[in-house]
Amino acid sequence: MSKIDIGRRILSENEKYALDNGRLLSEGGKLCLNMISSPGSGKTTILVRTITELKEKIGIGVIEGDIQTDIDAERIRATEAPVVQINTEGGCHLNAAQVAGALKGLPMDKLDLIMIENVGNLVCPSAFELGENGKVVVLSVAEGDDKPAKYPAIFAKSKVLLINKIDLLTKGAAEDFDIERVKTDARRLNKEIRIFQISAKTGEGMSGWYDWLTEFVRNRQSQRA
Amino acid sequence: MSKIDIGRRILSENEKYALDNGRLLSEGGKLCLNMISSPGSGKTTILVRTITELKEKIGIGVIEGDIQTDIDAERIRATEAPVVQINTEGGCHLNAAQVAGALKGLPMDKLDLIMIENVGNLVCPSAFELGENGKVVVLSVAEGDDKPAKYPAIFAKSKVLLINKIDLLTKGAAEDFDIERVKTDARRLNKEIRIFQISAKTGEGMSGWYDWLTEFVRNRQSQRA
Repeated sequence: MSKIDIGRRILSENEKYALDNGRLLSEGGKLCLNMISSPGSGKTTILVRTITELKEKIGIGVIEGDIQTDIDAERIRATEAPVVQINTEGGCHLNAAQVAGALKGLPMDKLDLIMIENVGNLVCPSAFELGENGKVVVLSVAEGDDKPAKYPAIFAKSKVLLINKIDLLTKGAAEDFDIERVKTDARRLNKEIRIFQISAKTGEGMSGWYDWLTEFVRNRQSQRA
Repeated sequence: MSKIDIGRRILSENEKYALDNGRLLSEGGKLCLNMISSPGSGKTTILVRTITELKEKIGIGVIEGDIQTDIDAERIRATEAPVVQINTEGGCHLNAAQVAGALKGLPMDKLDLIMIENVGNLVCPSAFELGENGKVVVLSVAEGDDKPAKYPAIFAKSKVLLINKIDLLTKGAAEDFDIERVKTDARRLNKEIRIFQISAKTGEGMSGWYDWLTEFVRNRQSQRA
């Protein structure tokens, strides 16, 4: 008797590309994280500091997603990390086909980790898998503490939440931001989420994030060894 | 000889609803503004302060767009202004059909102006007309001064740009935000755009915005008189 697949879901074009990307990355022993946030939460500043300070430990390449301009890619280039720019020309999120193309432009043999900086948008990018091993959501304290409640999808799906710009708190500039509310709401959506309070500008709190990232890469490498 | 329309563009469902909304508002002598920004730029705080301080001059009703929760609508309700909540259940922007439904829930005879607070998203809402008389884009100084360059569509389409949270500048919390760069970039995209530098939290700079809004409503009313 021949085997019949029933109820098998047809994959979308995006899902097919995402699976291919995931396979390519996995075969090469590379990890990939997809960074998602509102515009101006500090994704690029986080990347620049992380790349600079982990340069000796982890080979990081970047895929920069922007509607237009290569302002962010230029900032990454200054760190000497390899970077490929994707301009979505109006598109509100990256898709997996774009990432497939961008991966071809990175010197994969020199890299341990590919960081994708998605288009600044807290909503749409969360619905499009790119083939990554995890999502990192960034929230700036200037955006207010109600964001996990109001935009739950991305907090529910992320491995890591970076609460950025905490230097504003000590300057009395976001004194109504209740960091405990953010943590409680995020953990209600996602028990496993790792949360780090950072200032990519001053460096405060970055070491916890670096430790997590280093461990994440080391675990994958030891699985392959 | 009968008249033949050639090259007439077929309207999308959204455009049809937007035209109907526009007609309904115009026939009733109402104005409508569509507020668009990233999550956490301060749209609700601007609305609360504006409604409270212009209460005696302009009858303002609000349509609140959120993915889920009625956190913002509750804040508006505290001002005693009429408010209708739309939950998009994951949708990344309001559409004109949703607004058509919401308009039915407002006491139109008591209102001069309907303010629509769109879903927090600097990208998608700019592509969907709702039947409004103009768009108001809000940018918080914490988001950085490269936003008009990186997300040009909404700056090109808006009547007004509100640069919010300028209290952060005086607290030395966003000292790298170049307000002149924002103005220059926004005006390059849109010569007509009116720009106000405000802090909805402290009230600084709000009077210019109030004057513009009062004039906007008065002009419309005098056209009808």
